[in-house]
Amino acid sequence: MKVVVLLSGGVDSSTCLALAVKQHGAENVYALNIMYGQKHSKELSCAQKIADYYHVPYHLIDLSLIFSKSNCSLLQHSDQPIIHKSYNEQLKDLGGSGTVSTYVPFRNGLMLSCAASFAQSIGASAVIYGAHADDAAGRAYPDCTPEFVEYMNKAIYEGTGRELVIEAPFLNSNKAGIVKQGLELKVPYELTWSCYEGNDQPCGSCGTCIDRKKAFELNGAVDPLLQSTK
Amino acid sequence: MKVVVLLSGGVDSSTCLALAVKQHGAENVYALNIMYGQKHSKELSCAQKIADYYHVPYHLIDLSLIFSKSNCSLLQHSDQPIIHKSYNEQLKDLGGSGTVSTYVPFRNGLMLSCAASFAQSIGASAVIYGAHADDAAGRAYPDCTPEFVEYMNKAIYEGTGRELVIEAPFLNSNKAGIVKQGLELKVPYELTWSCYEGNDQPCGSCGTCIDRKKAFELNGAVDPLLQSTK
Repeated sequence: MKVVVLLSGGVDSSTCLALAVKQHGAENVYALNIMYGQKHSKELSCAQKIADYYHVPYHLIDLSLIFSKSNCSLLQHSDQPIIHKSYNEQLKDLGGSGTVSTYVPFRNGLMLSCAASFAQSIGASAVIYGAHADDAAGRAYPDCTPEFVEYMNKAIYEGTGRELVIEAPFLNSNKAGIVKQGLELKVPYELTWSCYEGNDQPCGSCGTCIDRKKAFELNGAVDPLLQSTK
Repeated sequence: MKVVVLLSGGVDSSTCLALAVKQHGAENVYALNIMYGQKHSKELSCAQKIADYYHVPYHLIDLSLIFSKSNCSLLQHSDQPIIHKSYNEQLKDLGGSGTVSTYVPFRNGLMLSCAASFAQSIGASAVIYGAHADDAAGRAYPDCTPEFVEYMNKAIYEGTGRELVIEAPFLNSNKAGIVKQGLELKVPYELTWSCYEGNDQPCGSCGTCIDRKKAFELNGAVDPLLQSTK
């Protein structure tokens, strides 16, 4: 059975890819990455390296024009700075729940739809992506919630003539749970990139850097990206 | 309230646009068209003309690369011919139900997702599109069925942080019902294009030509595109 994995080059999607390769064999796995106009291209080159590492074909599609009117802080043309606070703190600032400034309008819905069109075109049966509970908390990223995934899955199933499903294997895990599985699978995390800034080293203080560091620590491990900066 | 209308330049979406302009005022309506690699560009120029007619801004986004692996007969690179039979006959050939060869993989899901990202970026509250009962019959186009629209609507609502909905005002109408409304709204159907072939005049024998002609006839009217060929 052929599957398409949405691969951004971060921890979650790289672990998804490792799991898919283990379950389906590299010959049945296709990696798809989407450019949406992000501020830096570092994670794009990381995604390519991860796909190469696992010997799976890598496809890149540019959807950045769709977001040309958005002022989300992740986007190249945005004048909003990346907020250097943990997601928990950002949610507190929002009064407990609400979308964070790094939420890109319906990005995951668009990526999943894109993956569905691509997947059905090549005769694949599933689209796999790395949504997880931490991103869904407080609806910080509403396009990561279990409700969203459930409805999107049903929309894709019905809309493709019942040929395709979404799998979100980490939907009930947090990032620490993903890293736990990834360490067992020996995911080459030194090739991944999560930081929202595109510098040589992770900034260590944006929401995703804070979450990533904690996820490794909770597994008694050190993020190889931080090791190499010592 | 701002709304985004998916406008392809055919009968259904042009009537959608007319209805949206009547309900919300031209100043609140945005037309969005998606290139998906279709065999001809005739409907693109028609969509532009319809948007101009109604004085609404027109945005065009190219998603054709996503479908580069599909062999759907509507696509430029496909070696499959357009079938010159009515949808009813095509469904009979498929044993009563199934996707027709002009179904583009999850195209409507992708277009709606694209429209959702665009709409939320500009602060719109709804995405409007022209799915109707004829296209849904026998799941000829599975991405036009009420089930698909329901789940996609819920996915977009949840995935945008409950800021955006889909409206499909013709979901329970057939094409004749759409033309009935359109004639009342004085939609300039002479500017629209439906035929799957990109010739000077409609071929008259592809599924959409047959449906279009019948829809006008059922309203005791003649399609202005056919009038001008006399």
